Amino acid sequence: MHIVITGAAGFLGQQLVERLLAEGELNGQTIRHLTLVDMAEPPMPATDGVEVTRLALDITEPGGLDAALAAGPDVIYHLAAVVSAAAETDLELGMRVNFDATRALLEGCHARGLAETRLVMASSVAAYGGELPEVLDDMTALQPQNSYGAQKAMSELLINDYSRRGLVDGRVLRLPTIIIRPGRPNAAASSFASSILREPLNGEEAVCPVSTDLAMFVMSPEKVIEALIHGAEVPGDALGPFRAFMLPGITVTVAEMLETLRQVAGDEAVARVRHEPDARISAIVSGWPSRFTTRRARELGFRGDGSLREIVDAFLNGKA
Amino acid sequence: MHIVITGAAGFLGQQLVERLLAEGELNGQTIRHLTLVDMAEPPMPATDGVEVTRLALDITEPGGLDAALAAGPDVIYHLAAVVSAAAETDLELGMRVNFDATRALLEGCHARGLAETRLVMASSVAAYGGELPEVLDDMTALQPQNSYGAQKAMSELLINDYSRRGLVDGRVLRLPTIIIRPGRPNAAASSFASSILREPLNGEEAVCPVSTDLAMFVMSPEKVIEALIHGAEVPGDALGPFRAFMLPGITVTVAEMLETLRQVAGDEAVARVRHEPDARISAIVSGWPSRFTTRRARELGFRGDGSLREIVDAFLNGKA
Repeated sequence: MHIVITGAAGFLGQQLVERLLAEGELNGQTIRHLTLVDMAEPPMPATDGVEVTRLALDITEPGGLDAALAAGPDVIYHLAAVVSAAAETDLELGMRVNFDATRALLEGCHARGLAETRLVMASSVAAYGGELPEVLDDMTALQPQNSYGAQKAMSELLINDYSRRGLVDGRVLRLPTIIIRPGRPNAAASSFASSILREPLNGEEAVCPVSTDLAMFVMSPEKVIEALIHGAEVPGDALGPFRAFMLPGITVTVAEMLETLRQVAGDEAVARVRHEPDARISAIVSGWPSRFTTRRARELGFRGDGSLREIVDAFLNGKA
Repeated sequence: MHIVITGAAGFLGQQLVERLLAEGELNGQTIRHLTLVDMAEPPMPATDGVEVTRLALDITEPGGLDAALAAGPDVIYHLAAVVSAAAETDLELGMRVNFDATRALLEGCHARGLAETRLVMASSVAAYGGELPEVLDDMTALQPQNSYGAQKAMSELLINDYSRRGLVDGRVLRLPTIIIRPGRPNAAASSFASSILREPLNGEEAVCPVSTDLAMFVMSPEKVIEALIHGAEVPGDALGPFRAFMLPGITVTVAEMLETLRQVAGDEAVARVRHEPDARISAIVSGWPSRFTTRRARELGFRGDGSLREIVDAFLNGKA
């Protein structure tokens, strides 16, 4: 089993590498080779027995993916992306990384006859938008109101078409907003959702740029990684006529996040959250839907978190 | 008013040119210049007073659109496309014409600052697919099961994103199956839908390859052209959060087509239709949805045909 991961130096990529090496196998096959791709060379993970190739390359350059695809990987995790706020700032950069690189990956698989290769891409709740129903289902249109979502939606269509034509075995997981991310705030418009829990739990201040009424569809890093693993294990013919679907997140409001923070860390933790409305951030994230049936994902065996409290407890356990 | 039309030598392009010249104006402004673009030089239309530029060029070549965009057109009709059967046969050709050329058009408008230019693209019922509900609405997902539909759906997303960013003023009309097309039967899977009316009305035999129970979502050429005209006249801010929607076709079964044929031309006309079931054609067209609410299009003032009888009567009047 040879697995390629793009965006391997990123948060999800690093957690996925760690989990894959801990499992030692994927889809019942021993992992023998990991190829980790990112703009800068990904860190060397701790392993014995698994060959690790680390590639610092620009997947948007012509031929940039050749080295990663030449060995004919069994599974490709395509996690490389320009995040939402950055894609909104720089249309050309977003198109190149979020769409053109996906297309180059598909073309590369096609050119090398990698029809059996399972390509797992991360898409996003940001692909939804427009005049949405109260509760979304698997047949709700993607009418994204941000360039990142548009680029992901286009990539979904392309992966589905290449899969339908038998050129690759693609599957696209639409990720809920991931909380609680480790590390520092980043350029993602949703960054605050982790920050308003993580920073106070670390004794630091955080800024909440949105109304506490805002509802979000969220999933813990642990469940997202489990979903990425499962996403490579689901048989292609079980996926039905479209290869992209929403993962089973849970719906929580910012007020519920702050209340859970209070339960686990008291009023003083909640007091570390400063409320500084940001119209730009609010405009982006308030357009993201927060309620889904996620029937297809559940039927395929994907599982979400039990509650927000479980997510916070898991974060605290990870810190301990 | 300067109007550019890509695919100007095609069936819709030619009818649109004729109609625009007959009207003499678009959106209340006198038409002074038409730029007609196609792979081969489009025919010279009959006009006096309107400047007509005819360009034989490949819009998929780098800079291919420069000549058409240099003058800063007020309206662009983007009708150039590789049709469904060809796009299914040749993925690369379909991507290049149906998607890359649309992207080049958008980039060309962006580069020239044509933010006010109204870009009207024709999309298709073929963009729908998958596990569809009985009646589709404006928020039904596009999960195309053919490459043509996937390429159109991707183009829709890109046009919407460029419009949302204020780089162009795009609008995309999803066309129903057009009946009654003039001319002869062709290789299109939907060809029979025109043929089983047109040929008997012309005293000729026709073949019906599908069950008479089959329902289709149809629109007359006249109403499609009216919709293209209206599509350039609707104010951009009326279009709401997504720039693509289904036009208000009408739902008719093959049995209803044959009954209408009987009403206008008698039993002898109906007897000219031979029923020769074709599993391949049936499989294709039975996957196309036939019932839509088309609320958004109706609210924007787009109008469909009153009845199948009106479509047939209009065809007979056009012949007379």
